[in-house]
Amino acid sequence: MRSTITRREIFNSAHRLFKPELSDEENIKLFGKCAYPNYHGHNYELHVTLTGDIDPYTGFVYDIADLKKIINEEVIEPFDHRNLNLDTTEFSALNPTVENICVVIYQKLRPRIDSKFDLKIRVYETIRNYSEFPV
Amino acid sequence: MRSTITRREIFNSAHRLFKPELSDEENIKLFGKCAYPNYHGHNYELHVTLTGDIDPYTGFVYDIADLKKIINEEVIEPFDHRNLNLDTTEFSALNPTVENICVVIYQKLRPRIDSKFDLKIRVYETIRNYSEFPV
Amino acid sequence: MRSTITRREIFNSAHRLFKPELSDEENIKLFGKCAYPNYHGHNYELHVTLTGDIDPYTGFVYDIADLKKIINEEVIEPFDHRNLNLDTTEFSALNPTVENICVVIYQKLRPRIDSKFDLKIRVYETIRNYSEFPV
Amino acid sequence: MRSTITRREIFNSAHRLFKPELSDEENIKLFGKCAYPNYHGHNYELHVTLTGDIDPYTGFVYDIADLKKIINEEVIEPFDHRNLNLDTTEFSALNPTVENICVVIYQKLRPRIDSKFDLKIRVYETIRNYSEFPV
Amino acid sequence: MRSTITRREIFNSAHRLFKPELSDEENIKLFGKCAYPNYHGHNYELHVTLTGDIDPYTGFVYDIADLKKIINEEVIEPFDHRNLNLDTTEFSALNPTVENICVVIYQKLRPRIDSKFDLKIRVYETIRNYSEFPV
Amino acid sequence: MRSTITRREIFNSAHRLFKPELSDEENIKLFGKCAYPNYHGHNYELHVTLTGDIDPYTGFVYDIADLKKIINEEVIEPFDHRNLNLDTTEFSALNPTVENICVVIYQKLRPRIDSKFDLKIRVYETIRNYSEFPV
Repeated sequence: MRSTITRREIFNSAHRLFKPELSDEENIKLFGKCAYPNYHGHNYELHVTLTGDIDPYTGFVYDIADLKKIINEEVIEPFDHRNLNLDTTEFSALNPTVENICVVIYQKLRPRIDSKFDLKIRVYETIRNYSEFPV
Repeated sequence: MRSTITRREIFNSAHRLFKPELSDEENIKLFGKCAYPNYHGHNYELHVTLTGDIDPYTGFVYDIADLKKIINEEVIEPFDHRNLNLDTTEFSALNPTVENICVVIYQKLRPRIDSKFDLKIRVYETIRNYSEFPV
Repeated sequence: MRSTITRREIFNSAHRLFKPELSDEENIKLFGKCAYPNYHGHNYELHVTLTGDIDPYTGFVYDIADLKKIINEEVIEPFDHRNLNLDTTEFSALNPTVENICVVIYQKLRPRIDSKFDLKIRVYETIRNYSEFPV
Repeated sequence: MRSTITRREIFNSAHRLFKPELSDEENIKLFGKCAYPNYHGHNYELHVTLTGDIDPYTGFVYDIADLKKIINEEVIEPFDHRNLNLDTTEFSALNPTVENICVVIYQKLRPRIDSKFDLKIRVYETIRNYSEFPV
Repeated sequence: MRSTITRREIFNSAHRLFKPELSDEENIKLFGKCAYPNYHGHNYELHVTLTGDIDPYTGFVYDIADLKKIINEEVIEPFDHRNLNLDTTEFSALNPTVENICVVIYQKLRPRIDSKFDLKIRVYETIRNYSEFPV
Repeated sequence: MRSTITRREIFNSAHRLFKPELSDEENIKLFGKCAYPNYHGHNYELHVTLTGDIDPYTGFVYDIADLKKIINEEVIEPFDHRNLNLDTTEFSALNPTVENICVVIYQKLRPRIDSKFDLKIRVYETIRNYSEFPV
């Protein structure tokens, strides 16, 4: 009985999209308002989906309390109420687009979850924009 | 023209996660607050997705009024305002985790829907936890 | 500068509406499906609103971390994952309608919050029904 | 690094489901209240999902500002605050079911988006009914 | 114990804002896209709030099943899947703005609800615009 | 016929709560994670409510297109994708708590709206915290 379980969490972070080698004008041309120099921010909504067999004893694909703990350690603690560009190593040289945030969260969670489970990440930057990884 | 149609319905039920052979303490260790003996409950949100060809005459994959009627008979009537552990045969010996609720709803709806349609179930236990079956 | 701050919390509980002196039939006539004997449940959404002066130093009407702690002690701990009829003294002889749940939460929180703040409670039983107290 | 980006947009339109060769009675039998002759309407919610490689320079799968502009030209301008049956060529002879609306939006957007990107459309007619194309 | 109970219902209708004595151009200048001649539509979300004493026996301000029935007869039956301008007497000569829809629903429900209850109507035309009456 | 019309808008901003005369430790003690030095951010949701007489000719309390334009000029342009502490004069020396953000938006909009209309501001910082001004 292969099934999924998804856990939703929230983190509130500042970020900015820009390339350091470009001028402010060039960055705004490329990234629009997301390039404004002093950062803006979002209430990011994260969905972590695990796919695996339902344990016939417990009825769980994965213990949601364990999943919550892992997400908290890998994502909420380092990202929540932080500036993604300034406060994290992952985005110090990588643009924190919603696509890249998905990939980074996947890379952080993947080693913490037994490989017998498929892992999928969805992040909503706003109610109007979201990304999924992997596809 | 293969497409999907999804119908969302709600049911409000009590449930409890536990194994009868375990002590209260052991159940709480395994299932956390979900094992509390006198039941708690949820506003379950159910998404039923059918995949099939769009009927070129009506423009429907499936008549949503028919789908609503089937969901009502198979899920809402037996589960809504009921105790899943005590009032249903399906969960009398099966833990009503959100994963198992998905599987049971799938098994109840599958014989009622022509096999030319794929069927997928998603159930939200809360806004923070949901499951899908099959994958 | 008089303003409000509202905190939203969730608790998942079982309940049942009934009068012990009535038969099952009479209870169902009076309370509909809410009277079914083995309980059902809801994801209750609670909004606690405090009205008071904005502290000119902090910019807070009330420290939201303190409010969260009080709500947790008075509401979430005793009600979440519990059966309101069986597990609480407040509803042992009082019907846990959404109106009464509002009043009870008000009565539990009022002594914990300085009387210079007005206090208002809103509880959503489902997305379709909610109550406020006081008016 | 293959990933997705989804953009959500809204359009408010009138529509009616019917077959011109049928009587009013027959149409209501086939399409229910959706066949009422003077039209009704919805706040349609559109999700447009592109799948492709993340550009290693920008961190984008697709520039969301470009996607917004294309959706605006192809969907919002012609459909928003319009009568789908009367004001559009696409639905002048095709029933504007939510399934067909998905297909039509796909057909309008597909030529505007480089074929290296996969394109998927989801339309919510109401919070209770939605469709996806292709599957 | 004075409290409130609110019931939420949905109706899907077509409408158009215009003055018959004005030209199409003048109407669009005054009402924007809402004046387009062939109608558009919305998923209207209605909140009906009654304020009164909590009945000490039932715990209800008002029986929600009765309220639902009244709303159905006065609002859902005549407005849902209808064209507000063409299919209703109330809006045959009155612009169906969200403000006027609130007033009309108030006037239809007020005689059906005992005057010992205060009545308040809120209507969401979209997630971005809503009105309340009376204030 | 006195009624209200509410317009919802969104702005995405960075902010930080702190007192410059306090140490980092003291600020974190007072403001928790909101004091982290490199800013975090939110998708702020703004509700602007005007109360006034319904114009018997148009059916409007206030032309929503005019209201949208004023909100855009006074709030969205200066605050959206900006750092409230660094990029605005209003919060250069005032803590951008959700309570103060409400007051500041009120003070910016009040002179732009005829005094015959009452004005009320609600701001959601997250889905869990919101404020209203005036009360």
